Amino acid sequence: MKEWINELNSFFSANQVLTEPADRYSYSFDGSFGEYLPDAVVQVKTKEEVVHVMKTANRYKVPVTPRGQGTCLSGGPLPVKGGIVLDTSQWPASIDVTPDDLIAVVSPGVLTASINQEVEKYGLTYPPDPSSAHVSTIGGNLAENSGGPRGLKYGVTKDYVIGLELVTPEGEIIKTGGRTIKNVTGFDLTKLVIGSEGTLGVITKATLKLVPKPPAVQTLMAVFDEVELSGKAISKTLTSGILPSKMEFMDQASVQAVENYKPSGLPVDAAALLMIELDGRAEAIKAEVIQVEKIMKELGAKDIVVPKNEEEAAKIWQARKQVSPAIAKIKPTKVSEDATVPRSKIAEMMERLKVIKEKYNIELVVFGHAGDGNLHPNIMCDKRNEEEMIRVEQAVGEIFEAAVELGGTLSGEHGIGTMKAPFMEQELGSAGLDMMKRIKDSWDPNGIMNPGKMFPERDQKLVLRNE
Amino acid sequence: MKEWINELNSFFSANQVLTEPADRYSYSFDGSFGEYLPDAVVQVKTKEEVVHVMKTANRYKVPVTPRGQGTCLSGGPLPVKGGIVLDTSQWPASIDVTPDDLIAVVSPGVLTASINQEVEKYGLTYPPDPSSAHVSTIGGNLAENSGGPRGLKYGVTKDYVIGLELVTPEGEIIKTGGRTIKNVTGFDLTKLVIGSEGTLGVITKATLKLVPKPPAVQTLMAVFDEVELSGKAISKTLTSGILPSKMEFMDQASVQAVENYKPSGLPVDAAALLMIELDGRAEAIKAEVIQVEKIMKELGAKDIVVPKNEEEAAKIWQARKQVSPAIAKIKPTKVSEDATVPRSKIAEMMERLKVIKEKYNIELVVFGHAGDGNLHPNIMCDKRNEEEMIRVEQAVGEIFEAAVELGGTLSGEHGIGTMKAPFMEQELGSAGLDMMKRIKDSWDPNGIMNPGKMFPERDQKLVLRNE
Repeated sequence: MKEWINELNSFFSANQVLTEPADRYSYSFDGSFGEYLPDAVVQVKTKEEVVHVMKTANRYKVPVTPRGQGTCLSGGPLPVKGGIVLDTSQWPASIDVTPDDLIAVVSPGVLTASINQEVEKYGLTYPPDPSSAHVSTIGGNLAENSGGPRGLKYGVTKDYVIGLELVTPEGEIIKTGGRTIKNVTGFDLTKLVIGSEGTLGVITKATLKLVPKPPAVQTLMAVFDEVELSGKAISKTLTSGILPSKMEFMDQASVQAVENYKPSGLPVDAAALLMIELDGRAEAIKAEVIQVEKIMKELGAKDIVVPKNEEEAAKIWQARKQVSPAIAKIKPTKVSEDATVPRSKIAEMMERLKVIKEKYNIELVVFGHAGDGNLHPNIMCDKRNEEEMIRVEQAVGEIFEAAVELGGTLSGEHGIGTMKAPFMEQELGSAGLDMMKRIKDSWDPNGIMNPGKMFPERDQKLVLRNE
Repeated sequence: MKEWINELNSFFSANQVLTEPADRYSYSFDGSFGEYLPDAVVQVKTKEEVVHVMKTANRYKVPVTPRGQGTCLSGGPLPVKGGIVLDTSQWPASIDVTPDDLIAVVSPGVLTASINQEVEKYGLTYPPDPSSAHVSTIGGNLAENSGGPRGLKYGVTKDYVIGLELVTPEGEIIKTGGRTIKNVTGFDLTKLVIGSEGTLGVITKATLKLVPKPPAVQTLMAVFDEVELSGKAISKTLTSGILPSKMEFMDQASVQAVENYKPSGLPVDAAALLMIELDGRAEAIKAEVIQVEKIMKELGAKDIVVPKNEEEAAKIWQARKQVSPAIAKIKPTKVSEDATVPRSKIAEMMERLKVIKEKYNIELVVFGHAGDGNLHPNIMCDKRNEEEMIRVEQAVGEIFEAAVELGGTLSGEHGIGTMKAPFMEQELGSAGLDMMKRIKDSWDPNGIMNPGKMFPERDQKLVLRNE
């Protein structure tokens, strides 16, 4: 047994440090791609335990990879250099709401969806809504800066975090931000840590900003014969003075996949669907629905569905949520991207994706959060087919290239992790990447905090094949 | 003439490098406290010029302090270590709006208020509204992460910046973020730089996020006999499902100061005034006004004023804007603080301020953005009176202590600069401060970028006297 494992064993209860092959294997993969076996898993439940792990790991120069529920789509919790997986999912859930301050203080292992269940009792809401909210931990959301459909109106995880407690790579506890909405005391370490994918420390507590829960919600669905028209309808809506809470897009392939998987009555002959949600006061929504219907008609929507009640609306959103499981049935491997472009470039990006699909003869499905330009091109493939995977690798590279060329970014909400690291310099330039690395090196001089993540190694390339 | 000045002179046009005593003197002060003479002023107009200044300064290890219009209330643009003041206020104004993307790309010298004048043509708005918007540059707002009344609903400058072009302390041009709302590619350098008070580089371009301009606005004013009741009315409103765009507070001393200065018809016998602005769709505001009136009455407001038209509303906001100039008439020196507490602690903070006022026998006036806990305690004094200034120094120290004890922060929106640096460790702890310094040192190894700002020097104390 390695000396550092003995040292952890002598500090922790017997069942907190896992070193059996079966346990290690269950922590070797996440919602993305690839398998990497850790040497040990430590299930931490207090900040003092995190401090102990970090100080030990830093002394022995052992890698530490924090992990929530492992729903990550970019490899954040994969222990690519072995070492310790620091599992925060067993941390006792604590959601401490102060309604008068419009804040909630949460522990890292809390399931994201349970935050809303709790704060709704006070007429408040925590807006970020990643599709995995019912299974993902807030700790994972914080590390990856998760998005979701409501990002359009409400922003992403980062926009709702005003304070953190963090254990640094060297095992010091620091406090960033606080309990106030406004705070300009020093550098904004809170927003630096959110989205840093576990490379700058371990989040042990977070103070979240809440907003009043909108009293009313209304869904609409618009059906288009041409993808381009749906793109124009998005722009037109967003410049009409209306900011919907959601504006989701599905292409024909994703509509057909859903209807083959769990029929929801979606129009299978549509080239594109827009699913829109308006929220606010009932008086305002009534007027906005009329305005949005008018815009959709003017832009050539061939049908507009306005659900009459909550059940009908829920059915539409349920269909949207089925896209991911539905397309996963098409082929055994799903490569899920989230390249994001400025809103006005959505139609152009769709065109580029069509060309890439044909060029590499791949099965490409496009859906996503169109209102903020955050598309989800998904490639359905079979990782056992090496020839196909080479084509997929090339296609993914071209998707990133297209997004960056159109003024967009590699990742809107899934993160960089292992898969997008090789493309970082393309977007950031070498000087930009260097400034990020300087921060990482100054905080983590031994390079033990989630190594192998987000910064490319020399000549690193995207590889989706087993080597 | 110093060698580095000769080198700048050989690169720049004659009128861009100022070394005459009169010119240097005009750059030796800002909207805060203290005077520091720079060795030279360079009026830059392009990013290439900034690169040249930074590379030269870095080679000669000469301090560089960026400056916009100098309206800063915390000493950001003061060249406390001499060297170069880099004046961006002469930079040609450029506001490039892309309405379909809901963004505007701006140059650093643009006046903040002119951004809204431009984007309103497209039915859009840039929400941050520091009181100095009509005279301050966006570059200064970005460096200081300026707030304003609308922070309550809309957040602060940082919440509206999605991309930057930055010249690093070593003279490299980097791009942070981009033109998309969602972006998780690498560390969030954008939000690290915003509010870093010019210590991490020079911002040469910014991409701002815009939102649809709310179609309707309604003002209300509530008059209270007790400060505590006004605090409770704020909390009650914010947990009722309503999020006003502004919720401003004035204490009796500030009401009386305004009425002595420019009579506006405010009730001089009121213990506290709340000025509230609701925005959104007309249909929704109508219902919200009734709800807010009800809350104010329930909480014991003795009078509620609902302006009947824009002129009447403008008069109320004009009175609020007069507080700063009005109190400046009371005594020659104004020490303006912006200690911020969680909303639920506003009443308690007011009580603490009253005790401090009596203990040190100082003239203390309190007003500010109560809806987000961002109060502005202002001390009126005379800097030529040494005995008084010692009392003021002690009172300021206790104000910071009270804010931090109540879970708040030293500064909500004005920044740390020179005056609050001695109190940084009190809020952040030594480990937290150390992690900030590591970033600074890794980005600016020669320590030339706005030195003397925000990080305290050994045993540094607040000194408001001329020494």
